[in-house]
Amino acid sequence: MRLVRYGRPGKEKPGLFDEEGRVRDLSAIIGDIDAAALGDKALRKLARIDPKTLPLVRGTPRFGVPVKGVGKFIGIGMNYADHAAETGAEPPREPIFFLKATSSLSGPDDPVQLPKGSKKTDWEVELGVVIGTRAQYVTEEEALNHVAGYCVVNDVSERAYQFEMGGQWDKGKGCDTFGPVGPFLVTRDEIHDVQDLDLYLEVNGKRMQSGNTSSMIFSVAQIVSYVSRFMTLEPGDIITTGTPPGVGMGRSPQRFLKKGDKLRLGIAGLGEQQQEVVAFPK
Amino acid sequence: MRLVRYGRPGKEKPGLFDEEGRVRDLSAIIGDIDAAALGDKALRKLARIDPKTLPLVRGTPRFGVPVKGVGKFIGIGMNYADHAAETGAEPPREPIFFLKATSSLSGPDDPVQLPKGSKKTDWEVELGVVIGTRAQYVTEEEALNHVAGYCVVNDVSERAYQFEMGGQWDKGKGCDTFGPVGPFLVTRDEIHDVQDLDLYLEVNGKRMQSGNTSSMIFSVAQIVSYVSRFMTLEPGDIITTGTPPGVGMGRSPQRFLKKGDKLRLGIAGLGEQQQEVVAFPK
Repeated sequence: MRLVRYGRPGKEKPGLFDEEGRVRDLSAIIGDIDAAALGDKALRKLARIDPKTLPLVRGTPRFGVPVKGVGKFIGIGMNYADHAAETGAEPPREPIFFLKATSSLSGPDDPVQLPKGSKKTDWEVELGVVIGTRAQYVTEEEALNHVAGYCVVNDVSERAYQFEMGGQWDKGKGCDTFGPVGPFLVTRDEIHDVQDLDLYLEVNGKRMQSGNTSSMIFSVAQIVSYVSRFMTLEPGDIITTGTPPGVGMGRSPQRFLKKGDKLRLGIAGLGEQQQEVVAFPK
Repeated sequence: MRLVRYGRPGKEKPGLFDEEGRVRDLSAIIGDIDAAALGDKALRKLARIDPKTLPLVRGTPRFGVPVKGVGKFIGIGMNYADHAAETGAEPPREPIFFLKATSSLSGPDDPVQLPKGSKKTDWEVELGVVIGTRAQYVTEEEALNHVAGYCVVNDVSERAYQFEMGGQWDKGKGCDTFGPVGPFLVTRDEIHDVQDLDLYLEVNGKRMQSGNTSSMIFSVAQIVSYVSRFMTLEPGDIITTGTPPGVGMGRSPQRFLKKGDKLRLGIAGLGEQQQEVVAFPK
């Protein structure tokens, strides 16, 4: 299933994409796409519904983050060897992770807002993993059983805040609008091999990032298992799994986002995001 | 007011401490001590209630985190010059912050659980600041107007995870049970000078940390203002403002927590926490 949350910010309703790519409303079936909806049993129940029996949503609604009530938004750093190289870092020996403020979450096509005075806001297309069931000290073999599904994430990052202001990355990762997620939460049964998905990102129509999840240093299963040793993963938590090469910081000369830039990014089978970069309103 | 949440984990009810130090139940007045309850207007309304008219809670209930629905749990690093020195770090030129996973939140007297294989779990008594109203790019002068109140926090930290496994502190700050908060949320009107509060922490009856918030490098107002430039602070967010000297890592020889250790920590006017250190259950 391709689950969505559609409607105005803060007023999203649950829905699903049918085979024809139309949104069907799930409000009569579930309250929202939240922790209670993400377990295997709840998802199986949803999957038994014939989408044709659900009300069709007219027009082209805005999409929100496809999960309500994200408790933790965890980012993995330097998880593609070629991206690590472009930032000048050694590939890590074990996963590096950080937390993105949940207040950074935004819809897949909502504007990305430059913080006041920001000069180094950068893009990162990433595979997002949505946790479906509680995971604490899970093995790599068990790990994917705790995943509800996958989504596209833009792990927007202000490089000066991330690297030049004390060294804790959270400062540059959690600004408002720095976490576009969606449009879909694609349930894991629909993804044949999560370690073979193409990712791409364009700025103003120019391809900046191209990659494939096969180049990850640590696989999704390894990441889920690893993080679950440090903190219990709960339904609705999102882990964004690192970015392939081609970020603005790694280009020569460096290229950062400015007002009016248009981003287009996606992952095969998981849909596409489009964001306009805007300045902080006066 | 000294607000509390009392009862079993996940089933806490709102309450307040009366002048005699007894818990009075607030369930008939407010749903919970959450974002909606923390604004100035909501707090003023609560303050008009005569505690004697509220039902008395019998016995000695467990206390939970005194705020429900914490969206962000933000930690400030190295905010006492003498603590920075004991860790071997230079005092920061601007606040360092990181995020504690909200899944680390626990009641003030709940056990602190050592992660499996942990050898360097450490203590940190800290002043916690609970945000009452949305704060985005607020000035230092305005900052405290956005604070609902204050609380005691133990910013429990696994030093090997924090410093020896990639350098992003979140890895050592967000383990389950690493965020005891409470017992009280003391509203800001009750705190005469937040920059003159004594803090202390004992392990097995031995004084380990003694400090005063007057030694902070960055004041609470400076911290709230600073963080609000990087992410919007929302009602119910908690900022824990750094620890005075005396952590286990800074002792000679170093002393880390082990099973059976008993912690007692508190801040003048904000109450006291007591935790037993337990091993991860087999």
